[in-house]
Formats: sequence, C-alpha cells, structure tokens
Amino acid sequence: MTGPIIGISLGDPGGIGPEVVMKSLRSGVYPSDAAYRLFGAEKLIKDEINKLGINIDISSFDIHEPAGVSQNFKRGIPCKENGEFSFCCFREAVNEAEKGNLDAIVTAPISKQSWHLAGISWAGHTDYFNKTYPDAIMSFFSSKLNIALFTHHIPLKLALQKIKKQSLQNFFLRLWKILKNQRGGNWQFLVSGLNPHAGEGGLLGDEELKEIIPAVAAAQAQGMPITGPIPPDIICREALNQHQKIVISLYHDQGLIAFKLTAFYEGVNVTLGLPFIRTSPDHGTAFDIAGKGTADPNSMIAAIRLAYNLSHKTSQGL
Amino acid sequence: MTGPIIGISLGDPGGIGPEVVMKSLRSGVYPSDAAYRLFGAEKLIKDEINKLGINIDISSFDIHEPAGVSQNFKRGIPCKENGEFSFCCFREAVNEAEKGNLDAIVTAPISKQSWHLAGISWAGHTDYFNKTYPDAIMSFFSSKLNIALFTHHIPLKLALQKIKKQSLQNFFLRLWKILKNQRGGNWQFLVSGLNPHAGEGGLLGDEELKEIIPAVAAAQAQGMPITGPIPPDIICREALNQHQKIVISLYHDQGLIAFKLTAFYEGVNVTLGLPFIRTSPDHGTAFDIAGKGTADPNSMIAAIRLAYNLSHKTSQGL
Repeated sequence: MTGPIIGISLGDPGGIGPEVVMKSLRSGVYPSDAAYRLFGAEKLIKDEINKLGINIDISSFDIHEPAGVSQNFKRGIPCKENGEFSFCCFREAVNEAEKGNLDAIVTAPISKQSWHLAGISWAGHTDYFNKTYPDAIMSFFSSKLNIALFTHHIPLKLALQKIKKQSLQNFFLRLWKILKNQRGGNWQFLVSGLNPHAGEGGLLGDEELKEIIPAVAAAQAQGMPITGPIPPDIICREALNQHQKIVISLYHDQGLIAFKLTAFYEGVNVTLGLPFIRTSPDHGTAFDIAGKGTADPNSMIAAIRLAYNLSHKTSQGL
Repeated sequence: MTGPIIGISLGDPGGIGPEVVMKSLRSGVYPSDAAYRLFGAEKLIKDEINKLGINIDISSFDIHEPAGVSQNFKRGIPCKENGEFSFCCFREAVNEAEKGNLDAIVTAPISKQSWHLAGISWAGHTDYFNKTYPDAIMSFFSSKLNIALFTHHIPLKLALQKIKKQSLQNFFLRLWKILKNQRGGNWQFLVSGLNPHAGEGGLLGDEELKEIIPAVAAAQAQGMPITGPIPPDIICREALNQHQKIVISLYHDQGLIAFKLTAFYEGVNVTLGLPFIRTSPDHGTAFDIAGKGTADPNSMIAAIRLAYNLSHKTSQGL
C-alpha cells in the first residue's frame, strides 16, 4: 500500500453516516491504493454491508471501535448514547491524525443534539476544530463553486461586528498561504461585500469603505491575487464553474445559500489550516431517512476522493 | 384593441434600455392584442429599429417624449442629461398609470448615478415607489423561484434592527392579501430565518425565537398558509421549481443571491401593492455593452409578458 492512510469517523450511529460511508467504500468506488481506517461500531458496519449486499471483505478495513462506551444506540433520533459514541469515534480519529498515523480524516455527520445530550461541550466538529485550532478555516469545494467563510456559526448580529480591517486582512493572507501550501495552483480570491450592492459607495452601508476595501488593498500590497468587495448577489455568478477561483464570504449564509443551491449532492466541506487534511460531506444526519437504504452517498464519495487527492498533493510537497 | 395598455419607460439613454425594449417589441415576440406606449426619445427608438433591422411600423407605438428636456445624451456613461431625461420618462409613465390611462408599466433600467448627477433625490425606481407607496413590496418572479423581500436597499445592520414581530406580521398579511388579489391561486409562503440554521433553537441567535416564530404563528392564526422560519441556506432549495411557493427573505442578499443564481436572464422584478402593475427586468444599465447590439432581451421580454398577464388577470377580477 503506497497511498495515503485515510481515517473515516462514521458519525451519529442513528443517522445515515454508516450507510453513506459503506456505500462509498464499496468495491470500485473508492481509490484502491489508499488504506482506510474506520472509527465506528463493527456491528453497524457489518449490518450495512449485509443490507446493501456489498461484495466487500471486511478484513480489508482497519476498524477502531471505542472501548467501554455503550452501544445502546437509537436509530432515527438523537440520544445520549449516540452522542457519546460518535464523539469518541471522532476524537480518536483526530488523535490518530495528530499523532501522524493518518494523512487525512473524513467525518460523517454527527448530531449536535446527541452531543449536547451526552454533555459534550463542543457544538460540533467545526466548533471542536476552531477551539483547538483557532486559525482553522471553514471552506466548501465543488465542481461548481469554491467558498471560504470568514465567520460561520455565530449569530448574524455578531458576524457584522467582526467585520474589521485587521481581522479581514489576517484572514485573507492566512487563506492564501494555506491554499498555496495545501492545494497548489494559481488561486484567485474574490471578496464579497457585506451590504446590498457592496454598499454602493457608502449609500447602503459603510463597512465596505471603512473595513473591507482597506483590507483588500493591504492584502494586494503583499502580492495576493484578491479582488473585491463585489456585490454579494453577483459574486457567485462570477466564480461559477471557475475552478481556480474561491469566494470569500463574510458570513455563513452569504456563502452557503449559493453553495447549497449549486452543489448540494456533491459539495465537500474542508477544514483548512489543520496539521492534517479534514473533509466531510455537505449534509447532516438525515434522521428521517436513516435505515431506509435510500441515502445518497455522492457527497461522501466526493469527500473521500478530495481527502485522497489532497493527501497525495501534500505528500508530494505541492 | 381589447388587451391591456402597457407603458414602457426606456431607462437611461446611455444604457441598454432602448435596445432591449425594441428587441422585445419586434414583431411576433410581444403579445399583439396589447397597446404599447413608449416613454423615451423618438430618435433613440428609430436608431434601434434601424440598427437591429427590425421589421416594425413605428406608428403602431404611441411615443411619449418629455418636452423641454435636453437630449444631449452620453452613451455608455452616467451623466446629468441621461438622468434628467430618464427620470422624466419614468415619472410620466407613473403619472399616466396613476390616472388610470395605463394598466401596467414596465421600466427599463435607469442609472442611480445619472439621477444623482441630475439632482434627483430618489435613489431609484424602487425608492420612488417606496416613498410614495410605503406599503409597496419588492418581489422577484421566475420559472425557478419566487421571492419577496421584507427589507431591501438599506445597510445590513439596519435590516437586522427591523426584524420585529409586529412589522413581520403586518408584512406577511399584506403580501398574502396582495398576491391573492393580484395573482390569484393558492400561494404557499415560506419564511426564511435570519441566523445560521435559523438560530438552531437559540444557540446561534435569538431573533427567530423572539420575533420571527411569533410573527409566523400570528399570521397562521389568521389562516395564512405560511411556514418557517426555515434555515436560509436550505429554503430556496425547498421552493425551487415550485410555482405556487414564494420565499419571504428578510434582507436583500438573502433573497437575491439565490434568485440571481437561478434566474439571471429570465427573472422579473415586480413591485407589489401599487394601484397598477409594475414590472422591470432583473438587470442594470450595462453601460459597458451599451450600443454594441449584444444585450440579451430575455429578462425584458419576461417583464413585458408578466405585465401583460397580470393586467389580464386584474381586468378579469382574479
């Protein structure tokens, strides 16, 4: 085995995580020169293989099952046991990646409510990474559109307060450096405005004049290929189908309204700025269809493939 | 002539307005049982007919040319003369509609900067309507998505301050009443949340719990078919291609990011709640391509067609 070692945490045991992971790993779909380590319950993995009629040798996967944690799962709803187990799987995968035993991790969706019921203080995967790695950047990639979020899981009112020249400038330069190191290529960065029509010269808001334009100018002065602010309702059309362009969105929905409209079933969430690769599919636990065998694995397939490609690039020093 | 009388203002003389209007009105494209009154410069209309090689009898249109206003236009840039002339055309069309001499008006794009240079105090068509008719509602219709904006051309910071239960409730009920009267049918209304994930039960913002949910409940109590708040990055997928659904967006870009991504060349802006029909295409003056003959008339064609259809419905009492 010469390819990368990819860890996959199976997410909430009551959701569609185990199903979409096993659908993704069925013979022929996944890149075969990589090694896969699964962080989840062996009985769920076997269940899915049987139910899906997948022709797969279970011994080809290295399965890590958290010890001493209840497997009294509930399907289709959040609960304490689901939360505790999915958190342990996720943390173990992260620990292995931090030790250098994995090149990348792919995380199936967890339930924030299950974590909450289990008394886990983090609000989710991204919250965990942000507290451990405050410089981590939430980003989304698809064949249609690439997006990085300046702020994400905070109230919109707070997001507005964070629009400050220095923070913006730091974010722009950090994103530029990470993308160059991790993904190579000649990225072009497009910054969204905050207000309608990007403020229309101050008539519709002053954050563009006071904070955003100076931050873009400062990043340009350091050689960064960045333009903006561009009106928020136009910027995504300008970046659509342009694989070397990435939109910098200033708040969660400014980026995700466009991303989810263009790439719901093939979008990948990538956490940039960690010491390892981390990707995840762009959907949740989908409790309502869990166990029905109807979950669409395309976003998970894309997440695994991107983790694989990025691991290759990193190991080749791109 | 038994059909409606539709007034069309030709917009900024330096932009693509005259071109897209005349392309739309070429024989065979427009509904032929309507009468069209054009508010613009006769010389520009003749120019476009000649340049486009349109087989059209100019005497079939009733042309209103504002008297005593300079026609020293500049093509491709905003200027005082362009602003003064386009404002007079627009105001004359509105006056005629207010007098009951027109069933509908369609407005080609003006330049806010030209208006500003001409000393006109309104920031655009919508601003003019909002000051004269404070209950007017900015909305967008296409075959993909229908959207009504709770707030539009104000700074995002101000838009957040306007999220109050009573104003929301009034807006919901007004929109319901207008759509029933003007467009008939069984509309379903989907209200967007304000914060990421619609606040996630208060974890990511409290406007949903304090203002939006009570406003939706109050409108439901009056029999309005309204649901929400729905996460802003999911709502448009739920309404996509559902012709009887309309999304209520709480601020300009929340609605227009999605609308422009799905319907840029066929979207129509409709001002609801006026004593007459008003539609306009979903694009600007496009100074950069003015005079080149390459402007796409599809949004203007859709705007004229919708004005025609709405006039018919109104005259039939639907």
